[in-house]
Amino acid sequence: MNRIGKQTIIFNNKPKIISNSAIVGPKEFAGPLKQYYDYRIIDDKWNEDSFEKAERKMLEFAICTAIRKSGKKLKNIDLLVSGDLLNQIITSSYAARKIDTMYLGVYNACSTFTEALTIGSVLVDGRYLNNVACATGSHFSTAERQYRFPLELGNQRTPASQRTVTGAGCSILSLEGKGPSITMATMGKVIDYGIKDVNNMGAAMAPAAMNTLLAHFDDTGTKPEDYDLILTGDLGNLGSELLKILMKHKGIDISEKHNDCGKLIFSDQQRTIQGGSGSGCSASVFNSYIIKKFRSGEYNKILFMATGALLSTISTQQGDSIPAIAHAVVIER
Amino acid sequence: MNRIGKQTIIFNNKPKIISNSAIVGPKEFAGPLKQYYDYRIIDDKWNEDSFEKAERKMLEFAICTAIRKSGKKLKNIDLLVSGDLLNQIITSSYAARKIDTMYLGVYNACSTFTEALTIGSVLVDGRYLNNVACATGSHFSTAERQYRFPLELGNQRTPASQRTVTGAGCSILSLEGKGPSITMATMGKVIDYGIKDVNNMGAAMAPAAMNTLLAHFDDTGTKPEDYDLILTGDLGNLGSELLKILMKHKGIDISEKHNDCGKLIFSDQQRTIQGGSGSGCSASVFNSYIIKKFRSGEYNKILFMATGALLSTISTQQGDSIPAIAHAVVIER
Repeated sequence: MNRIGKQTIIFNNKPKIISNSAIVGPKEFAGPLKQYYDYRIIDDKWNEDSFEKAERKMLEFAICTAIRKSGKKLKNIDLLVSGDLLNQIITSSYAARKIDTMYLGVYNACSTFTEALTIGSVLVDGRYLNNVACATGSHFSTAERQYRFPLELGNQRTPASQRTVTGAGCSILSLEGKGPSITMATMGKVIDYGIKDVNNMGAAMAPAAMNTLLAHFDDTGTKPEDYDLILTGDLGNLGSELLKILMKHKGIDISEKHNDCGKLIFSDQQRTIQGGSGSGCSASVFNSYIIKKFRSGEYNKILFMATGALLSTISTQQGDSIPAIAHAVVIER
Repeated sequence: MNRIGKQTIIFNNKPKIISNSAIVGPKEFAGPLKQYYDYRIIDDKWNEDSFEKAERKMLEFAICTAIRKSGKKLKNIDLLVSGDLLNQIITSSYAARKIDTMYLGVYNACSTFTEALTIGSVLVDGRYLNNVACATGSHFSTAERQYRFPLELGNQRTPASQRTVTGAGCSILSLEGKGPSITMATMGKVIDYGIKDVNNMGAAMAPAAMNTLLAHFDDTGTKPEDYDLILTGDLGNLGSELLKILMKHKGIDISEKHNDCGKLIFSDQQRTIQGGSGSGCSASVFNSYIIKKFRSGEYNKILFMATGALLSTISTQQGDSIPAIAHAVVIER
């Protein structure tokens, strides 16, 4: 079995991340990771007639740029695994229409990027396919009006809220080429601690992050010290603090090793309250800043775990609490 | 490589479908396949306070029943791969919350069931996991009010329209146990012939079905005669006719071998116009009628290809045409 413990699968052929691309919006580009992105859009609509079409164009750009940078031809990319936050993941499906490859649509909210990396790695590692593109994106203006309020209302944000990242990222996986390898994946279970505040997704997601992290350490016998970085997707400031406290209660101190894409992408001066979120958050931070730290030799082994809050406006209106999930992958030089 | 041609992957370990379950609503139970379902609900809300919660309960029922019938314990089911038509696939995510297994959320509209079977088969065939549950569902009353009009309006239906099936189905995949095997999968590309009528999804999906079918025949060197049945997901009456015409133009006559879950599930007397649709359509027909025909020896080899229309209300309102996809799996005794 290519598996250890209960939730962790092993990729013995070590699929490599041979190419990456990240594109962000203007506010993200004004943040601390400015120098790492491939491209930034200057206005939120990027010459399209709707925010939704701009989001789609960003995802297409990320996918096409990652393919170009991989040195592979489009016809050699077998499959796109992609998802996003819009209803029926239309950003991904329309992006897939533009690209002549097979397509699997996936959705686990903001943990979709590591879900896509997991599925892509299985297909490459098992020698079912040669080259797989894994991509996700999100857009502040589309998510805001779909999940919360019309932008024109200018609603004040609550203290626990995060800002959906306008951005997209893509990784190309292959056994042929150079780059860090995905060596394991720990898939998550759905965890729900009863949080009902849709503006506090950090609190909803932190228990799911803990659950996957505990499963990973248990399955693999590793400790936080074995990793250069334990990177969560978009718990934000509050969610990150909660995760550290939850882990400490379980006897594991991750505080020296932990960081979060939602914290990294914006500076405190940018007043995003708890930081960034959205399926474009982990995708754009991972495919720019993090991957360049691998290339420069700063990282040798990280645990990358995107987290997702599996709610919709319908479930919220019907009084449901927020289930969450986290999928982790181990990335090594 | 576990692959032939461009789009077809091969499962050399032949994952078996060891257990199935299907549950439907009252109108579906009044149709021709009555005797094949595991259970039917009598009213659309099934003692819940919303249609959405009834949909969730149906999917949970299908998953739990399939697990029970497999003879495996819940703790031995490693993963649920599931998707549905509701925004953010909440039916699947809330069902996954109920079940203590890992979860991958997937979405390719009404082709989600064969997408889930493909991902599940890869994980089992590659010996990453032992037992995987693949499930999808849909509900007439939730889909209607999300995608079209409030039910209370009682809108007249257009001549090309189909009826979303109230139903759910689940298959358990494993290398250990008895049942027909999934031997190949041909993943689809997104195809868009420019159809903009959201009430004519058969026309939007037929070209995608043709595309995957041609790729499958090309990759594998098989012909329609090599299959006991070429079963599409929910093209309905009109879409099925279109597929046969499109294939005939390519020089391949599938008319002797083709049938469609959307045609099978309702009788003409039930006045559903073009037949059934929805991600619960192929799931409930496959996991009842079709699988029992395998068990009784009537089928030895079929090609099962669910088809999906990848639209949302947002893309429709913004003037986009309807992209579509079809994923096929080969099932053999």
